[in-house]
Amino acid sequence: MTSRIPIVVVAPDSFKGSVSAAAAGAAIAAGIRRVWPDVEVRLCPMADGGEGTLDAVLSGRGHRASARVSGASGTPIAAGYGLLDDSRTAVIESAQVVSLTDPVGTAVDVERRSTRGIGEQMLQLLDAGARQFMIGLGGSSTNDGGAGLLAALGFALASANGHNVEPTPAGLAKLASVDARALDPRLAVSRITIMSDVTNPLCGKYGATAIFGPQKGVRPERIATIDARIAHFATLAEHAMGRRAQDLPGAGAAGGLGFALQLLGGEPRSGAEVVADLVGLDAALNGADWLITGEGRSDAQTLQGKTPQVVARHAAALRIPATLISGGIDAAALPELSREFAGCFALPSGPATLEQCVANAERLLADRAEQAARLWGAARVNAPRGADCS
Amino acid sequence: MTSRIPIVVVAPDSFKGSVSAAAAGAAIAAGIRRVWPDVEVRLCPMADGGEGTLDAVLSGRGHRASARVSGASGTPIAAGYGLLDDSRTAVIESAQVVSLTDPVGTAVDVERRSTRGIGEQMLQLLDAGARQFMIGLGGSSTNDGGAGLLAALGFALASANGHNVEPTPAGLAKLASVDARALDPRLAVSRITIMSDVTNPLCGKYGATAIFGPQKGVRPERIATIDARIAHFATLAEHAMGRRAQDLPGAGAAGGLGFALQLLGGEPRSGAEVVADLVGLDAALNGADWLITGEGRSDAQTLQGKTPQVVARHAAALRIPATLISGGIDAAALPELSREFAGCFALPSGPATLEQCVANAERLLADRAEQAARLWGAARVNAPRGADCS
Repeated sequence: MTSRIPIVVVAPDSFKGSVSAAAAGAAIAAGIRRVWPDVEVRLCPMADGGEGTLDAVLSGRGHRASARVSGASGTPIAAGYGLLDDSRTAVIESAQVVSLTDPVGTAVDVERRSTRGIGEQMLQLLDAGARQFMIGLGGSSTNDGGAGLLAALGFALASANGHNVEPTPAGLAKLASVDARALDPRLAVSRITIMSDVTNPLCGKYGATAIFGPQKGVRPERIATIDARIAHFATLAEHAMGRRAQDLPGAGAAGGLGFALQLLGGEPRSGAEVVADLVGLDAALNGADWLITGEGRSDAQTLQGKTPQVVARHAAALRIPATLISGGIDAAALPELSREFAGCFALPSGPATLEQCVANAERLLADRAEQAARLWGAARVNAPRGADCS
Repeated sequence: MTSRIPIVVVAPDSFKGSVSAAAAGAAIAAGIRRVWPDVEVRLCPMADGGEGTLDAVLSGRGHRASARVSGASGTPIAAGYGLLDDSRTAVIESAQVVSLTDPVGTAVDVERRSTRGIGEQMLQLLDAGARQFMIGLGGSSTNDGGAGLLAALGFALASANGHNVEPTPAGLAKLASVDARALDPRLAVSRITIMSDVTNPLCGKYGATAIFGPQKGVRPERIATIDARIAHFATLAEHAMGRRAQDLPGAGAAGGLGFALQLLGGEPRSGAEVVADLVGLDAALNGADWLITGEGRSDAQTLQGKTPQVVARHAAALRIPATLISGGIDAAALPELSREFAGCFALPSGPATLEQCVANAERLLADRAEQAARLWGAARVNAPRGADCS
């Protein structure tokens, strides 16, 4: 009637607008420990390359620093980044530099916003010795085709009369030439990994401006104009580099930052996959019995490569069952989710508002994990019968 | 990597205001079958002696009939009852006769309401050969000290000038004598089981009128008067029967119906325990691996002998884990509930209103049971390790 206490890997994403991945993981672990005080819980806070990536990757490894760089609107800001223990690998979260939320009083129109600060951060990191860049693209407020980043790294953008052109949608209206000869040479010996799940091309009907522009403030009647300016810039930049990138999948990520980084040789990878590597998910899963993951809300999108799916697939490869605990679960997606997860559970313990779930997320997570662990334990106590023990 | 499919007993109470115990059980079973199409599910719809008791007890056994008797307000109504397969055992649900909800247009003040119809129903059942009565007391609208029931069964209630007195709180004001000599003699060879979890005495501070009167419409300023009238009636009735009952635990159940039935020799038992016997819960649990129970809302009261606790204890006696799926679970009661249940889960799959939970109870129950079954199955697949297989 006894059963060995399982080894549990806890690898949630953040619960957006509520708790960080680390806090969610700690709450889940606390709930599990109510059932098995001596349980071995292996915490792997996760992220998908967007907001929270830095927190997840630096949880228990590397160190966090901050660089003074231009914000999306040009105003200097202090933007966090991470350096892993080898001091050569830097983790950049675009949202730290050009997030959707500006410092108070600094917001300008999206047509005047630029990714220059991310290039500045890369320069400082190159100075510090970094030669490997893991760059998360989620949560950007820019739609500059990555012109700002390239300008900061040495691209010269000029008008017909030879004047410098601002690397913004507004500035690119006057763009006549792009010169890449002053591009920082250290980039040639650096490796760039792009963390993004977006597969859109840079321009056109499915491009950055048409698809993601409106949520950043691009007015519908301006989409065609801006899209054309960015296509013009991209073509010149490609010519300067002798390489094409604007039609590559993911070129349209983060308002075209995906284009600029791929033009520099960056390789796009699933954000959650990169984070799984960085946090050592497979090592944590080695010898484990059970995995619990989660996110703020799970629906059909979850199965398009979001963190819980990526984590569950790593577990499945080792035949470890993965249980999902999310703030809310779209009931319509349960049949599909059920194929990937050994039990999907939501936070509410009864009728509850979204606000109540958000405000009490840690308590609810601990409660839900505890109850799942009780069921798990009960199922195993009497489990070995007949064929099981052959 | 394989595990035998468990045998699952599904024994929920009704989800009050939403689905019957049978419908809840069917929904849970449907969810489990999504995981194991060939699973053996043993359905035992449960009840606690209140509303739904007849439905639960008659689910798959006995037959339901209906008798024309006086409703609480005196208007004739058709009230259901059950006859088990031996034709000697009758199941009466007080709420069928004197429910809190009157037929439209027949409601009268609680001071003019009576339990006479329940006595009338017993008389008809005695005529039909019944000699064992299982009487559920929950959900009554009366506070007559059981005077109506006793009057119907032969008690003579008279005023000082010898006139008949109405067996209601209003009528008892004139009560001067009680004569039990015309009590139906068949009751002496009958057995009465009272299904009730109420332990209050008939009168006084913790009596029926003071504690349960207000929710039935007794105005606060009338409590003392009505309590005194019922005490007077009870004392005369006890004298007539040569037996005391008003201070017995449960005498205050159903507005004093508990007193009247105990005066007739009835024995109070936990409603859920009686229903467990009647539906054959222990037989269903024999050889089972897992039990799922549930109710509309679980809180600290659940552990005061409500159906899910009773069911879980029967399972525990056979070392079978019991999982709870309720409409809502009071988070504050989770630590105590966790001692009795192998996992407590609520219906919502995310933020939801009570109305949404009630309206979608069957779908949500199926979903929740499915997810619990997935977790159960996953836990067992790899379960036998080390000590488990010794």
